[in-house]
Amino acid sequence: MSEDKHLTHLNADGYARMVSVTDKGDTHRVAIAGGFIRMQPETLDAIGRGEMKKGDVIGVAQVAGIMGAKRTSDVIPMCHPLMLTGVDLDFAMQSDGIEIIATVKTIGKTGVEMEALMAVSTAALTLYDMCKAIDKEMVIERIELLAKRGGKSGDYTKEGYRGKVVGESEGD
Amino acid sequence: MSEDKHLTHLNADGYARMVSVTDKGDTHRVAIAGGFIRMQPETLDAIGRGEMKKGDVIGVAQVAGIMGAKRTSDVIPMCHPLMLTGVDLDFAMQSDGIEIIATVKTIGKTGVEMEALMAVSTAALTLYDMCKAIDKEMVIERIELLAKRGGKSGDYTKEGYRGKVVGESEGD
Amino acid sequence: MSEDKHLTHLNADGYARMVSVTDKGDTHRVAIAGGFIRMQPETLDAIGRGEMKKGDVIGVAQVAGIMGAKRTSDVIPMCHPLMLTGVDLDFAMQSDGIEIIATVKTIGKTGVEMEALMAVSTAALTLYDMCKAIDKEMVIERIELLAKRGGKSGDYTKEGYRGKVVGESEGD
Amino acid sequence: MSEDKHLTHLNADGYARMVSVTDKGDTHRVAIAGGFIRMQPETLDAIGRGEMKKGDVIGVAQVAGIMGAKRTSDVIPMCHPLMLTGVDLDFAMQSDGIEIIATVKTIGKTGVEMEALMAVSTAALTLYDMCKAIDKEMVIERIELLAKRGGKSGDYTKEGYRGKVVGESEGD
Amino acid sequence: MSEDKHLTHLNADGYARMVSVTDKGDTHRVAIAGGFIRMQPETLDAIGRGEMKKGDVIGVAQVAGIMGAKRTSDVIPMCHPLMLTGVDLDFAMQSDGIEIIATVKTIGKTGVEMEALMAVSTAALTLYDMCKAIDKEMVIERIELLAKRGGKSGDYTKEGYRGKVVGESEGD
Amino acid sequence: MSEDKHLTHLNADGYARMVSVTDKGDTHRVAIAGGFIRMQPETLDAIGRGEMKKGDVIGVAQVAGIMGAKRTSDVIPMCHPLMLTGVDLDFAMQSDGIEIIATVKTIGKTGVEMEALMAVSTAALTLYDMCKAIDKEMVIERIELLAKRGGKSGDYTKEGYRGKVVGESEGD
Repeated sequence: MSEDKHLTHLNADGYARMVSVTDKGDTHRVAIAGGFIRMQPETLDAIGRGEMKKGDVIGVAQVAGIMGAKRTSDVIPMCHPLMLTGVDLDFAMQSDGIEIIATVKTIGKTGVEMEALMAVSTAALTLYDMCKAIDKEMVIERIELLAKRGGKSGDYTKEGYRGKVVGESEGD
Repeated sequence: MSEDKHLTHLNADGYARMVSVTDKGDTHRVAIAGGFIRMQPETLDAIGRGEMKKGDVIGVAQVAGIMGAKRTSDVIPMCHPLMLTGVDLDFAMQSDGIEIIATVKTIGKTGVEMEALMAVSTAALTLYDMCKAIDKEMVIERIELLAKRGGKSGDYTKEGYRGKVVGESEGD
Repeated sequence: MSEDKHLTHLNADGYARMVSVTDKGDTHRVAIAGGFIRMQPETLDAIGRGEMKKGDVIGVAQVAGIMGAKRTSDVIPMCHPLMLTGVDLDFAMQSDGIEIIATVKTIGKTGVEMEALMAVSTAALTLYDMCKAIDKEMVIERIELLAKRGGKSGDYTKEGYRGKVVGESEGD
Repeated sequence: MSEDKHLTHLNADGYARMVSVTDKGDTHRVAIAGGFIRMQPETLDAIGRGEMKKGDVIGVAQVAGIMGAKRTSDVIPMCHPLMLTGVDLDFAMQSDGIEIIATVKTIGKTGVEMEALMAVSTAALTLYDMCKAIDKEMVIERIELLAKRGGKSGDYTKEGYRGKVVGESEGD
Repeated sequence: MSEDKHLTHLNADGYARMVSVTDKGDTHRVAIAGGFIRMQPETLDAIGRGEMKKGDVIGVAQVAGIMGAKRTSDVIPMCHPLMLTGVDLDFAMQSDGIEIIATVKTIGKTGVEMEALMAVSTAALTLYDMCKAIDKEMVIERIELLAKRGGKSGDYTKEGYRGKVVGESEGD
Repeated sequence: MSEDKHLTHLNADGYARMVSVTDKGDTHRVAIAGGFIRMQPETLDAIGRGEMKKGDVIGVAQVAGIMGAKRTSDVIPMCHPLMLTGVDLDFAMQSDGIEIIATVKTIGKTGVEMEALMAVSTAALTLYDMCKAIDKEMVIERIELLAKRGGKSGDYTKEGYRGKVVGESEGD
């Protein structure tokens, strides 16, 4: 990181602004974010039992994550409004919690990192909310950007992340 | 945890519902949640330099956290709407990141754990957003409930949490 | 209906107002609303196939209906904001479509008819949205109030409605 | 309908997703939706009397319908956000109720059927809300798509619908 | 104003907080705010011509003002959420513009000054929006609190304000 | 102003509509709006003292103004949704109050006058809210458009306005 790195969200007076992206081009953007919610084994069991029925806890978190992604610019002050063109989440149950991965796409002037992080965060909070009556020790951990594609600053893949970056050529 | 613990947010068909709290009394509620955003030292330096001016990154995260707490029932599907009576956040800069603590209060039929967690989460995402141009390795960690007071299920303090639980007698 | 019935939502100038309920007492309120979405048999089959998997179309409509109920005063201009204390929906698949029933509760100064109708309407639109790629002939029908309890204007049950009105003594 | 029709809103795990439209082109889109609210003659009379004054019940429903169309992607979980370029509603008073027609336009990657249906639905609920003090037997009926133009899946006109599809060449 | 007056919205670190009102009692609250939008005579004429028809510019501003009052705690960062029990607006056309008065009521722990000011401000902006195609010289002026009733800090009436303060005994 | 000037927001029936801009081209748009909040000297002093600390009243108003600009089409009924590409505010403390200037940019089919006015209005209301405990005589004044660039109706600069119109060539 060079010494003259500065926070572009601050204007000349030191106040926050929504950075102008007026002159940036519209390009394909994909961002993938991940997170984890640590739970007690009994809580994971209760969630698993729910899945046998028609609806389930993870289904609600999925919907919440998608809707959360769409609310990003409402909730995060300096985020530009964006017309998201696709959002999906993936949940992997593990022995000590649930891993959450969100993929968000758009064609626009700014990236969708925040939208992917917001999707993960909202899904994790929703899982927390639905399980908190039986587990007060849950912890939401390692919410982070895993990969991004598109934009002037170039592609990025977190060291160690081996997931497929869902491209635009998948025909969906 | 007893064997017959179940997720009260699922109805008899296994679908989600907003649990009825109609017959619960209105009591004083306080919840304190914490979280941490890991950052590179250069990023923390840049935030510190910002503080010398009139506005700053942490000030924006503070506002976002308060507004986020108020949006909880909009964003988290099964959360009951609540009239929050007080919200405050505290940020502590450390050598490897920023610790965030949120305190939320209400008088109502349900607790404000989710509102406090939402405040922390929104503040962390806002810090992420404002610093992401200079640091792509940030990670949001250990979002968790630290303490709660009020309600039928009783008081709770996370093991190891030594913070003061802001009571109602403080005269504010 | 007496001749001098008038629309209380209009003020003396003929403009709309949010009617003052300042002096009304807080009472237990329940409202049950119903609706129906007519679909082609193939569409109902496709929804049924989805139910075999972990998530499903009806699960999404359930979440949407609950969140929709909470947005009522945001979307319907003259509705008073209310702190809903419970929301649930029930979906019954029939040979020519899906019947939707929503139950909403609060303790407050106004009834929750609009919240129950909004829950049904939002759930029906969500089913429509998720099925419209395979069925353009769907019709949303007979959105109506089935029953209400509480409030000065007294109880109401639609002629012919035989459903149980979920009371406050059910222990939830 | 061919046998392999499937619900594109479900991902490979059976969970809902916001379908990716990233690679679809931006085209002119128009959708027209209709609906009906059945009312008692006395209620229709009361609405008619209101129209003699400066404001009126239908004027409020008109505003609510337009604002509702703009909230579609906030309220319907899998709807893509869209920048609507035009919204209008038309109300026709009949002997047994009020017919509502909404026309919505955009230039975008997905159609505006849901926005038109949401406009009709919100307008109908608003009429219901403003009249419910004098009429508890109202029913909202036949909310349906009447016509759409634009998009890969081609044009659609409901059988029997004879209304003009408002084109882009009207000079507005 | 005494010397030790301080801004209660700032916490000990100088950051903003939502002031705790947890221990304040619920009392009847009324606030009346006013404002003015200066317009060219031709613009006022065009609005007047609109009133001859069924809908009108002022009717839309009325709806916007009521809905704006309900959004206050969403938009103004430190405002507490409140369950408004009544909102009405009054518009008086004058030779050089339109005067707007809003009255807002609740029973709660904080006053509704901001809600009344937000109603006036939203109504004024809506008038501006609907007239800006024919008048670019409009100015929104003197948005101010005219009177308030209820709360620990006591009643307030702006010097020179002679309007009736709508009480709770009016039977609405 | 010619005699046949009419309010384009009214449809043929005299009801409001969201004017169709479907066929307008996407062009660079900038709007600058201003406003003023009159305060007592002691209130200005209290704000100034706050600025010595890390957060401050003006910093909160800045965030509120930016977020308010993004909510414009949610709050102002006939406003088209727009993807804002940049928002900034400037506050100048004077002896009798605070002057607020907001600059909003987009590339789109309609101008951003309303978004700039909404930013100013929201910032002014936020200042009012944070200071109302110590000053009940504040007045929000002269909210107006100062300049606009782009769009078919051409550029506009308020007579007497000498501020720089922030162009797209500034490299931000």
